[in-house]
Amino acid sequence: MSNNVTTNATTSVTTPTNIATIAIHGGAGTILRSAMNTAQEKAYHDALNEILSAGQKILADGGSALDAVACAVSMLEDCPLFNAGKGAVYTHAGTHELDAAIMDGATLDAGAIANVEHVRNPILAARAVMEHSEHILLVGAGAEAFVAQHGVQMVEPDYFHTEARHAQWLRARDQEGMLLLDHDAASQAASEAASELEIDIAPIDPDNKFGTVGAVAVDMHGNLAAATSTGGITNKRVGRVGDSPLIGAGCYANNRTAAISATGTGEAFMRTVAAYDISARMEYAGQSLQDAAQQVVMDLLPRYKGRGGLIAIDAHGNVTLPFNTEGMYRGFAKVGEAPVTAIYK
Amino acid sequence: MSNNVTTNATTSVTTPTNIATIAIHGGAGTILRSAMNTAQEKAYHDALNEILSAGQKILADGGSALDAVACAVSMLEDCPLFNAGKGAVYTHAGTHELDAAIMDGATLDAGAIANVEHVRNPILAARAVMEHSEHILLVGAGAEAFVAQHGVQMVEPDYFHTEARHAQWLRARDQEGMLLLDHDAASQAASEAASELEIDIAPIDPDNKFGTVGAVAVDMHGNLAAATSTGGITNKRVGRVGDSPLIGAGCYANNRTAAISATGTGEAFMRTVAAYDISARMEYAGQSLQDAAQQVVMDLLPRYKGRGGLIAIDAHGNVTLPFNTEGMYRGFAKVGEAPVTAIYK
Repeated sequence: MSNNVTTNATTSVTTPTNIATIAIHGGAGTILRSAMNTAQEKAYHDALNEILSAGQKILADGGSALDAVACAVSMLEDCPLFNAGKGAVYTHAGTHELDAAIMDGATLDAGAIANVEHVRNPILAARAVMEHSEHILLVGAGAEAFVAQHGVQMVEPDYFHTEARHAQWLRARDQEGMLLLDHDAASQAASEAASELEIDIAPIDPDNKFGTVGAVAVDMHGNLAAATSTGGITNKRVGRVGDSPLIGAGCYANNRTAAISATGTGEAFMRTVAAYDISARMEYAGQSLQDAAQQVVMDLLPRYKGRGGLIAIDAHGNVTLPFNTEGMYRGFAKVGEAPVTAIYK
Repeated sequence: MSNNVTTNATTSVTTPTNIATIAIHGGAGTILRSAMNTAQEKAYHDALNEILSAGQKILADGGSALDAVACAVSMLEDCPLFNAGKGAVYTHAGTHELDAAIMDGATLDAGAIANVEHVRNPILAARAVMEHSEHILLVGAGAEAFVAQHGVQMVEPDYFHTEARHAQWLRARDQEGMLLLDHDAASQAASEAASELEIDIAPIDPDNKFGTVGAVAVDMHGNLAAATSTGGITNKRVGRVGDSPLIGAGCYANNRTAAISATGTGEAFMRTVAAYDISARMEYAGQSLQDAAQQVVMDLLPRYKGRGGLIAIDAHGNVTLPFNTEGMYRGFAKVGEAPVTAIYK
């Protein structure tokens, strides 16, 4: 466990051998040190470290950035601590609707799915759309029918169930009209549920937390990739699609500029086309990765009530992880160095 | 009927009273003068003129750009000549799936719907999402349930039926594997069907045509708005969503830069975040409206097999209508001047 990552963890790179880097996030929000116990902190750091190590190994073995981000996000989806895949939040109707996108910075190829209810790993479905269809975005039952044909694992909706999320949804319904953003764990109910499940979802303030997951990477060939996946907002309106599966909003990758994965109040990221805006600032205004990401997260998004953060990486292995909330589950790993993980500011 | 609009119809403005302008498109593609007869040309020019006049009247009466584009696109949807609303193409499953988006350049508020099957005017549904929900994009049955609550007119799917589109779909199914992009009218079948219906859908080459509709406007207060609506691609995979309902891809508006509505091979517009890219070039690289639009349509999109065009307008009343195909149904109208419409290069 290490807390020595600043809001903007930018690392300079000197030799071409160590540009290969992966960064991940597990959502941003009101994550307060005072509300977390040591065991909870450890559970999050352990999960982030394990996932970073897996992505790092792919990159160290000469694997592609695309493979690294797909692997990392599928592991984040499988981990019930995060709001994506297993552990996704419930919609207003008591269902799960999952969204994901992936983009290859070398080719600008992209794939995305939205509003699916039976796909174990939405990020692998997004990749199947990218690799096997002429399209970029498929939604709903049509998306499921397509990816099932291409070997993506389908599950019954109860696969996504966790007691903690279910308790959170019941509480949200009782407070009708108030959307609970993402992985609020509803202190008491969640603590009980977590102990039942022997998982340790942290108690997070119910109002301001955002549970997307994502990964960005650069491989040893200098190719970039980005991937984002989410269960959305607790008690969300059926059919709501946020920024996560939208190329340019919550996910974007371009070798010439950066790979970006975002998390936060999705609508603000959509209106500002936040992920692509970072790329455009770099390409057209000559801003650095860090300056572009900083301005989008700290200046642009707050003008539209945008709370959250993002992870971004460039072809030189620079990485930055800014957020404008109290915390963001995050980390990065450079090939040949120990992973670095962090939760708070 | 006038053909004196160039590929880039840019109009300079000298006095603040005449900035109020609306531009519309009805799709781009292989629209050849040699394949059109005079009656067909007249039908398209008449429709474009009527719709421009309606938008122009709203602007002349002091109405908002938002009202003007919503009115124009709802009329394009109601006109069976164009692939949106009534006259939308058929999916692979023999259904209609409609997408639309609207954006207010003054506030960056936006609304969109995708994959709806029972909404008479998708653009009015998109506006309802913008005005009555906390969200930007709703899809499928959830979207329909929401907009129906807010007074948007629902119809049975057979409302969207036209003989010409149905014949086109049957032919596409026979040529399985080949997606027919948008408003191909399948020469013979369509001619027969059109004469039956007493409408005059032009015979267009089956392979390269794109049937989105859209409008952009600036009102006398200098506020911009954009709106885009489509039935997608004939015989498209169920669940496919293109660029039209995606903020930044097929629709974008920002008072500081431009309002844009696109039509073409949607996936290329999504990968390049084409509509927002025009805004970013203006904001960050200092490009003019015309230069930015020209570079996106003529240089950037073709690199990704992107065929089509767009309409764009700025707060000074400059308007540009570039396309990289043989034709685009298009026109613009400045308050106090006669509408200008065009089809070919």
